[in-house]
Parts: sequence; C-alpha cells; structure tokens
Amino acid sequence: MSDKDRGYHLALLGATGVVGREILNVLEKRNFPIKTLRLFASLNSVGKTISFQENPLKIERVEENSFKGIDFAFFAAGGAATREFYPLAKKAGCTVIDSSSCFRMEPTVPLVIPEINKHALKNHQGLIASPNCTVSILLMPLYPLHKSFRLKRIVAASYQAASGGGKNLMNKLIEDTKASLKDNSIEDSYTYGFNLFPHPTPFATNGYVQEEIKVIEESRKILQDPRLALSITCVRVPVLRAHSIAVNAEFHTSFTLEEAYANMSGFPGVRIIEDREKNRFATPLFAAKKDEVFCGRLRFDACHPNTLEMWIVGDQLLKGAALNAVQIAENLVN
Amino acid sequence: MSDKDRGYHLALLGATGVVGREILNVLEKRNFPIKTLRLFASLNSVGKTISFQENPLKIERVEENSFKGIDFAFFAAGGAATREFYPLAKKAGCTVIDSSSCFRMEPTVPLVIPEINKHALKNHQGLIASPNCTVSILLMPLYPLHKSFRLKRIVAASYQAASGGGKNLMNKLIEDTKASLKDNSIEDSYTYGFNLFPHPTPFATNGYVQEEIKVIEESRKILQDPRLALSITCVRVPVLRAHSIAVNAEFHTSFTLEEAYANMSGFPGVRIIEDREKNRFATPLFAAKKDEVFCGRLRFDACHPNTLEMWIVGDQLLKGAALNAVQIAENLVN
Repeated sequence: MSDKDRGYHLALLGATGVVGREILNVLEKRNFPIKTLRLFASLNSVGKTISFQENPLKIERVEENSFKGIDFAFFAAGGAATREFYPLAKKAGCTVIDSSSCFRMEPTVPLVIPEINKHALKNHQGLIASPNCTVSILLMPLYPLHKSFRLKRIVAASYQAASGGGKNLMNKLIEDTKASLKDNSIEDSYTYGFNLFPHPTPFATNGYVQEEIKVIEESRKILQDPRLALSITCVRVPVLRAHSIAVNAEFHTSFTLEEAYANMSGFPGVRIIEDREKNRFATPLFAAKKDEVFCGRLRFDACHPNTLEMWIVGDQLLKGAALNAVQIAENLVN
Repeated sequence: MSDKDRGYHLALLGATGVVGREILNVLEKRNFPIKTLRLFASLNSVGKTISFQENPLKIERVEENSFKGIDFAFFAAGGAATREFYPLAKKAGCTVIDSSSCFRMEPTVPLVIPEINKHALKNHQGLIASPNCTVSILLMPLYPLHKSFRLKRIVAASYQAASGGGKNLMNKLIEDTKASLKDNSIEDSYTYGFNLFPHPTPFATNGYVQEEIKVIEESRKILQDPRLALSITCVRVPVLRAHSIAVNAEFHTSFTLEEAYANMSGFPGVRIIEDREKNRFATPLFAAKKDEVFCGRLRFDACHPNTLEMWIVGDQLLKGAALNAVQIAENLVN
C-alpha cells in the first residue's frame, strides 16, 4: 500500500500562527501520510495561501461542515477559537489534537507526551491534548529518572522564550530590542529589550500564576502522580524560541551520576549536551529548531539527599508544541 | 567641623572598569567626605582623566608608594591586580575594601553586607571584602526573614546580567544582539544575542561552577551558618545590568505571608514591588541604577512546609558591588 493510499484527511486550525506553521513543517519533514489537508485560520487570513509540499493551500474560514470527512484536526489556536470550533469537529466525528490549554485537565481527555504516556491514548474519545510547552520540556529528561528512581519533589525556575507568546511577542522582542539599542534611556520597566519578567499570566489565590499551575497540574496528570511535589517560578526572558529550565529534583531512591546519565541518554528524544572542559552546554540558540530536549550540568545537590540539579533546554515550538502534537497523531495512526 | 576637615584620603584601583566608575558615582552621590582621591588603573588608561565632582582626575599607574597616606583604598580590579597590589596597600597601612573574590573566604577578612553583618567590621585587619554580586542581592531580602524564622534550605536559580562580566561582556551583548538582528542564521550557539547560558566559570569536582560555589560559601560566611543548605544554578542572561533570582527558601519556623511582607519591607535597602492586579513586578530594567534590592511574588510553596517562593532583583553594579563597597567605607568612618 503506498503512502497515498493509507493517507489521512487532515485539518489544521490556527494555520498562520507560530505553532500552526511549525505543525506544517513537522508534517512535511516527518512525511506524515496525508490525503488531504485543509487549513483554517482567523478571518483576516482567509483567502491567503500557504505552501505545503510545494503546493499552495488556501486558508479557509471554519464553517458548520468544515470538519466533515476529516480524520485528524490539529488545533493550534487560542482558547477562544478552540472552545468555539471544537463542537463542530466533535459533531463531524474527527479526532482533535489540541495544543491549547482548554481541555488538558478534563479527566476524559488524555494529556500525552508520546515518549512518556502513549498508553493514555488507548481510550481517547476523539480529543487528545498536547501539554504546555514547559511541561513537555521539563518532563522529557526527568521521566527516565522518575521511572527508575521515582520523583519526590521538583523545584524549578524557567527561562521562557518569546515564542510561547506567539508571533506578536516575538515581534515585540525584536522591536523593543531595536528601540533599546537606539535609545538606552527607555523608562518603561516592562519593555522587552534586554529585559525579563515573571510570566504575566493571571494569579490564582495561592500566589502562583496560571502558567505555573499548568506546569504543576499537567505534570502530575502525565506522570499519574497527583501528589508529586512541584514548585516552579516561570519567567519570560529575551530569547526567541527555546525554553530553558533550571531544575532541582529530589528522588525516593538513591543512585549514581553515571546511572542518571545512562538513564537519560538512553531515552528517545533526550540528548545530553555537556562539555565541562570547554564549559559548553545547551543554549536556547543551540536547541532552536531541533527536535530533542537537551540536558546537562547534572550534579547532586551537595546539601540534600538523592537530589539532582540539572539544566534543560528545548525548542518551545517543536517538542514544546508542534512536534509533540504530530507525534500524537503518528501514534494514533500506527 | 566641615566635611572637608573630616575628609579622608581615598584611592580607587580599577577606576576605569564598570565597578570602578560606579564607585565614583556612588561616592559623589552620597557625598562621602573626601580630602583627596587618587585613581589607579591598568597601563593603557594611565594619563587619561576622569571627571569627579567636576574636577578632572588623572589616572595613575600603581607604584611602590602609591598608597602612602591613603586612608581607604577601594579595590575594583580583577583578581590578578588585587593580588599584585594589595601588599603595597597593606605596607602603606591603608585600609582596603576589595570587591574581588580574592580574599573573601580568608578567615581573618570580614565579608560584609553592612545591613546584615556590619558587626564583622569591628576587628578588621586592614582588609574588608565586599561579597559576590549575587550574594548581596540574594541575602538582602532573605536576611530579615532569616533573623525571624531561621533559614533551613535555599534552592535558587539566577538570571545574571552582562555587567557581572564587566564592560567587555556588556559590549559583547550589544554587538552580538546587533549581529543577530542583521542575520538571524548565526550558527554559534554561544553567541550572546537573544541567548543565555549556564555561568561559564570553571567547574569544581562537585559539579558546581565557581560562581555557584561563591554564592554558597559566601552566604554561609555572612550568615555565620556554615551548615546552611543552599543550592543554586547560575545563568547568564541577555540583560545589561541587574541580576534577578528565583528563590525557594525553607525556614525552621512557620509564619504567615503578612509577617513575611512586614519583615522584608521594614528592612533597610529592601523594597517590595508587586502589583498582582496589573501583574507587575520588579524587572532588571526597573532595578537598574537603583540602590535597593527589590522583592515580590511571595507565595508559600504549596508542596513543602514553611517554604517561601520569591522573586528578587537588584542592580549588580550597585548593591551587588559599588554601593556595598562604599557603604562599608561609610561604616568604617562613622
């Protein structure tokens, strides 16, 4: 059977956003078996075209029957569009792979990082959620350790790129940086050029912001450990498209550094990057546009038992979003 | 007695560096009582002038008798110059306030943040060390809490500005950023434009880098608690001159958030900055060129008892270096 014969009818909601565009790149690069592909976006993009496998595809507006005959729909739009259009996809019987946070914590919705919990896909009901970008990047290197030594408590601080806020925030970073280079007396202490700030999502009553709560709750759901102790401070940094995380992780069982390295480097999608002699580790620019999550600077916390410090970097748009969504589809297909 | 009558003979080693220049600004701004001020720097600056209180001061080279008659010498040079010239200052009987890391951990050398341990100045032997920039910024808001509730364990991650690497690194950040704006295909994953990386100081055998070890050891010395549990990941971010730190701090005693806020906001040199409604906190650009250390986003770690999360920002060149050094001199004088 040729690829074309066993191909699928796909749709992509949010085709012009940064995650949508990456989903197209990933589908192309990984040669996902496609029969047809329909692109949807907000009204101001309707009628424009995007090139896919050297064919121009027209961007359509979502209508009542848009998802009819579609096998898989990638949703890479904001929460509002997701809530508005998901019922249409559901009615049409198409399977939605959603990158938004809308449905991630619904008990009937599998929240999946394929390398970690593809088993959760088994009983899906037509809707699968792809996790928050920081969650995927955090858990990829931690999971192999968790499997062997069982996580007890994580304390983390993130260095999150502009891409997490979409095209607009990436443009703002570039424009604010240009403005700062021209005029170094800018008074706005929240300008983004050469500046960083706590992740500005709304506060919950416990003092954590929504982004942090997502990391905590989604990690617990994916690891099926509702009592996992996890605290994180999420910070937006002036970097374009890869997230970094400094992690202090305590485990139930003791182990050696050699065991930790062996565990992680044997896990698909994780790569150890460290050259202590040259003092070189993964950086956001190194991780950008790469599929793997990179990890290094492993060392035991000298003050606390069974506790490992590490440095993690991954592309927010790939493993943090588009790649993971396409991997979910691949697992549904195979 | 007029200021001039009770003035002092000062010297500044490293007058052309970023910290040296800030020491001059701080001396001027705080109206430190000065009779004479001699500026020393490396050979390629000798003969140039720097304006101080509207007078041009000539930069001299250090010679055998340069420190004769000097009451206080601020050392704001690298380790090599400090080691080379300290014996001359010592022989001349002048008191050295050193911002380098050379002598900080010597048992006979007081390591002082005046708001925290000015008592340590009492028995100085002519040499006082000013701490690592991240240490001063970290401990300023933690100390009032430590005094009341006793610190048990700190887990931190830093967001350190270019200024910590001096003028050259600040220039590199600007030049690399301009290059990235011109050409977004730069392959060097360690370019500094829109990028960050683990602090590239040499490794110790325990896997921590020297910068991190300084934070751990100096904090213990200043707090006189050699067993304080402290782990940190130090990271260089593309920001010009203020350091940020995400801190998870466990205490021996329990307390309320209100008590924590009251404790910190009553402490000199610490200011709480938070507007949760507008989602506004201290940023490096906000803290730049300000004397205080700013703190906010206080919340209890939902997964661990007596543990506070917080966001700290302070100017690396001021409280992190120049201001603290001048404050030490002020305490010696008064």
